[in-house]
Amino acid sequence: MMRIDILSLFPEMFDGGVFQTSMLKKASEAGAFQYNYINFRDYTDNKHNKVDDYPYGGGAGMVLKPQPIFDAVEAIEQESKKNPRVILMCPQGERYTQKKAEELAKEDQLIIICGHYEGYDERIRTELVTDEISIGDYVLTGGELGAMVVIDSLVRLLPGVLGNDDSAVQDSFSTGLLEHPHYTRPANFRGLKVPEVLLSGNHAHIEEWRRKEALKRTYLRRKDLLEHLELTEKEKKWLTEWETF
Amino acid sequence: MMRIDILSLFPEMFDGGVFQTSMLKKASEAGAFQYNYINFRDYTDNKHNKVDDYPYGGGAGMVLKPQPIFDAVEAIEQESKKNPRVILMCPQGERYTQKKAEELAKEDQLIIICGHYEGYDERIRTELVTDEISIGDYVLTGGELGAMVVIDSLVRLLPGVLGNDDSAVQDSFSTGLLEHPHYTRPANFRGLKVPEVLLSGNHAHIEEWRRKEALKRTYLRRKDLLEHLELTEKEKKWLTEWETF
Repeated sequence: MMRIDILSLFPEMFDGGVFQTSMLKKASEAGAFQYNYINFRDYTDNKHNKVDDYPYGGGAGMVLKPQPIFDAVEAIEQESKKNPRVILMCPQGERYTQKKAEELAKEDQLIIICGHYEGYDERIRTELVTDEISIGDYVLTGGELGAMVVIDSLVRLLPGVLGNDDSAVQDSFSTGLLEHPHYTRPANFRGLKVPEVLLSGNHAHIEEWRRKEALKRTYLRRKDLLEHLELTEKEKKWLTEWETF
Repeated sequence: MMRIDILSLFPEMFDGGVFQTSMLKKASEAGAFQYNYINFRDYTDNKHNKVDDYPYGGGAGMVLKPQPIFDAVEAIEQESKKNPRVILMCPQGERYTQKKAEELAKEDQLIIICGHYEGYDERIRTELVTDEISIGDYVLTGGELGAMVVIDSLVRLLPGVLGNDDSAVQDSFSTGLLEHPHYTRPANFRGLKVPEVLLSGNHAHIEEWRRKEALKRTYLRRKDLLEHLELTEKEKKWLTEWETF
């Protein structure tokens, strides 16, 4: 069972909602993972329970002090068999990808640190943390949503969590292309018709149509994903059809 | 006041937790935005309330039917003064960025559609939706976490939501660089010392140190962010120092 400890000043963000619903709830009930959340304010050694302070050198914004976070992480590590990976959610981190999710899903234990508004004292980054992760190039109020994204993406990769149908969806992502268009009933919705080929019953044609549409969508929207992909001669020829879009 | 309508099969994910905490709670109480969540299963016109069906052409996974989502969106639009933007959370969408958050923060109303496991019938994409958004290159169980990320990032840009201190943090992101390291008390934590320059009181030196460290971090971690940045001759020289890293 994977154990995930989440350090946050707003642990109530993890109550209700996301963790009590859907896949995460089922995975937790099935024993695939367990999670704890820790308010690192409980680890301050000053009488006002201050977790942040003004930045050295001046400037706006507060900075999270090293002491409470070091002590909270070390308290968890003392109960651990081996040193767990310690993940810092921050905009300066490496961009999170499916590959990273697959890597983290192999761990027995993770500690995830979430800041909120404030920056982190650099010594947390350099001495305590093994991975800095950013979920994307946008500014969020805190690391909590990022932690939920990381947890959702990796828990669904744990053994036994997803049924076969859902696993297939995930596999289709691993082709390295954006997915082809999907259609379901009715065949005619307000005059908008499903492409003939999908109703033809000719599976070779359907497979070719899907591959071509997946390539087209990827070419038009995310050319960067095609860089590491090996294409057949026929597929390369398709690409030239879309050059003028 | 911005109005956000969220369409989801798991609206309880938005209960408690994220929306009842921190910035989003304050912004909602202060009247900066209001949100509603709608279970589009309530809009099905079939007696079993089916929202999905098998894909035409075969294959694993289910596909969300057009009818319930069209009808739910149109019910919201009928109450709206002008046609709101309709956002689809999906891995095939444009990658979400701070620039997109700034663009969406100017709208009066947004409708956000979240799928869950299933794919979307293509006619939803082509006929109903104005924006397709992906928060990153990883697979999540549903669009709900993505919707929360989008909402958090844009609500904090609405007028009056953030105090001055926090706005400053946001501005520092808009320099186009990753942030420089931060340090706070104590100056010596377990033998780990704060850089001398930050204790010097010399503001010109501090500014130069911070600029150089921000550039260094960006150069070493996210070279792609430097492409559109104009650097001084001095800064270009700095970059050559780090080439061997």
